[in-house]
Amino acid sequence: MLERSPLAPKRFPRIPEIAGVELAGRHVGLKPAKGVKDLMVARLAPGTTVAGTFTTSRCPSAPVDWCKKILSGGKARAIVVNSGNANAFTGNAGDLVVDETVKAAAKLIGCPRNQVYVASTGVIGEPVPPDYIAKSLPRMVKDLKSKSWQRAAEAIMTTDTFSKGAVRTAKIGNTEVTLAGITKGSGMIAPDMATMLSFVFTDAKIPARTLQSILKSAVDKSYNCITVDSDTSTSDTVLLCATGKGKRHLAVSSARDAHLKDFRRAVEELLIDLATQVVRDGEGAQKLVTIDVTGAMSAQSARKVGLAVANSPLVKTAVAGEDANWGRVVMAVGKAGEPADRDKLSIAMGGVQITANGQVLEDYVEAPVAEHMKGQNVHFHIDLGLGRGKARVWTCDLTHGYITINADYRS
Amino acid sequence: MLERSPLAPKRFPRIPEIAGVELAGRHVGLKPAKGVKDLMVARLAPGTTVAGTFTTSRCPSAPVDWCKKILSGGKARAIVVNSGNANAFTGNAGDLVVDETVKAAAKLIGCPRNQVYVASTGVIGEPVPPDYIAKSLPRMVKDLKSKSWQRAAEAIMTTDTFSKGAVRTAKIGNTEVTLAGITKGSGMIAPDMATMLSFVFTDAKIPARTLQSILKSAVDKSYNCITVDSDTSTSDTVLLCATGKGKRHLAVSSARDAHLKDFRRAVEELLIDLATQVVRDGEGAQKLVTIDVTGAMSAQSARKVGLAVANSPLVKTAVAGEDANWGRVVMAVGKAGEPADRDKLSIAMGGVQITANGQVLEDYVEAPVAEHMKGQNVHFHIDLGLGRGKARVWTCDLTHGYITINADYRS
Repeated sequence: MLERSPLAPKRFPRIPEIAGVELAGRHVGLKPAKGVKDLMVARLAPGTTVAGTFTTSRCPSAPVDWCKKILSGGKARAIVVNSGNANAFTGNAGDLVVDETVKAAAKLIGCPRNQVYVASTGVIGEPVPPDYIAKSLPRMVKDLKSKSWQRAAEAIMTTDTFSKGAVRTAKIGNTEVTLAGITKGSGMIAPDMATMLSFVFTDAKIPARTLQSILKSAVDKSYNCITVDSDTSTSDTVLLCATGKGKRHLAVSSARDAHLKDFRRAVEELLIDLATQVVRDGEGAQKLVTIDVTGAMSAQSARKVGLAVANSPLVKTAVAGEDANWGRVVMAVGKAGEPADRDKLSIAMGGVQITANGQVLEDYVEAPVAEHMKGQNVHFHIDLGLGRGKARVWTCDLTHGYITINADYRS
Repeated sequence: MLERSPLAPKRFPRIPEIAGVELAGRHVGLKPAKGVKDLMVARLAPGTTVAGTFTTSRCPSAPVDWCKKILSGGKARAIVVNSGNANAFTGNAGDLVVDETVKAAAKLIGCPRNQVYVASTGVIGEPVPPDYIAKSLPRMVKDLKSKSWQRAAEAIMTTDTFSKGAVRTAKIGNTEVTLAGITKGSGMIAPDMATMLSFVFTDAKIPARTLQSILKSAVDKSYNCITVDSDTSTSDTVLLCATGKGKRHLAVSSARDAHLKDFRRAVEELLIDLATQVVRDGEGAQKLVTIDVTGAMSAQSARKVGLAVANSPLVKTAVAGEDANWGRVVMAVGKAGEPADRDKLSIAMGGVQITANGQVLEDYVEAPVAEHMKGQNVHFHIDLGLGRGKARVWTCDLTHGYITINADYRS
């Protein structure tokens, strides 16, 4: 059992009911440890629309293949998620497990199969017994409750050391709507869509196409801007479901609707909250590193530079060692392959300017930066001095804990 | 002081004199520890031709900028290399150090400035005192000897735990020529040219353009196929110098000359020997991992897949834990972004076939693979089943040692 991350929030947030969403989380036996939850079900009210983004892996899991296939339908009535086994690289047998799960859930809930979403997380390549999940579903459905957010969040954990949830409200016109989500992830975390599993729900009424467009741009600023170890999972899945069962609000027709602005803000904030909780639980993490990149040729270029820094083992070990080693930041900027000019590059750490004109400032004093590096929240600002593109990315330090966790996870 | 890598060769090789090459290695004070060598000089006979490849970093060191500028001249009379300071991100002051060094060496040796190559390795961003290297050169030149290979190799070390050299012979026509080289590198090692510093010499007589073409293709199969930590240095430099002072051989006019075949073979072998010594000294390395990728759409695609596996922290920690976790190899193949098809992918470890048709073999028994993982030499074979492209790449495991070394290197 891993110790709770020192970067974890004090407690799981209070999340209210979201009309049209019921959740359950239980131990059914996919994880060997007795009583540790390993299956999550969400039941959604009829009419719920759905948006999703998925891993870019060329070897995605069987559940990812299924979700991608049904996403164009735009409707969701159930989400079934197991932890303890990724059902990835499990060949036709893996597809069969998905089929059985979907068939059983659709029958129990009374909906078409293409409204049942599935996800799996855990070890890759181990066969899942075909009816293991399906046979547990009747019990799960009996357990469904509007308030089981934390139980659901616990059931999707793997090497996570804390359960992760977040909530926001937004106005659409004058009407308040609520958004809440749960997520998991701790290792095999890298951008390019995304990272781990994340399930977000709102009681607003939003057409699926609009929801997809809102989700995509929020994922680009949240899950696609975090990294723990540069490894992209076979199973990454983010789903955003809108039940339309909250208070009646101004009708929505497009993501560009002016009255959706606050809702878009809330989705982005909620996803950043959830995504940074994943980084806070990065395997072995002792520090959260926020990297602001400005002055790039484009936002995309800024993100690439930020992620090159965030993924650099040498930068991450320097942070672990509380070493204000800005030279390694220069190295990482240089390797990103994006436009950069030594003599325009400027670097600050903890708000202290360190370099200008391609060299260290003459009057640079390391003491305040060294002090900053001792804290739990480390901040870098990299200005490329070339254009107006900017991005913010998050990572954690690379510590002995990461090695310890990953040198024995499977055995 | 770091312990000698368990993967190090027993001893530094016996390298004979190469006619036209003299070397020196001394402590001049750039490294604080007394007596630890930190400056290397090579003097080359008049008429020596040179080829070079350099880091792709967008923030290269001042020495790299200089070498790139003079490479088109194709001639080299001296190479001056310091360790202990990378002279990277040192602004105009760094360029000045290069100027002073080159001026002093050219005067001492009696050659044009554009025949003096320089390289620096060590901490990034710390100013180098302007005349520190230049003023040490007279003493260095007095020390030059044909047999000082190991002294030279020691003088360019940073976190290296052993000095690295290699030697080969080749026939050009019926005439034997000799090739020898030294290299350094242990961290901040990633492909895309190359890795660290490597200086290779031969007594053969080869025009500079031919030499460049031979070097480039050998680097693509050696230094560009190794990785320790995916971090690309600001300073990577490989130079190949041909003095033409060995026995007279058939004249060479192009890299495609039939009588150069054996020489090309020897360059490639020598560079693979040196490059894999770098991996064997990878920071914290306990195991050398050789990854063969076959069945890719092209050789380039095979190399990308191999490097994605070789750079994956989760694969590398699994190797450290002696865990035959082939699921992480699937993950890394998937994230490479190259064509791959789950159902055609096959993976073997230590010569044991593990998967076929997108899943683990029914009769797969892990015991022999687990035994293989306990050895110092780990072998993966990934067949993509798509085409005829292949590549071999090398990496090491990711251990507590890497964290220990890099969380305190600078301080």
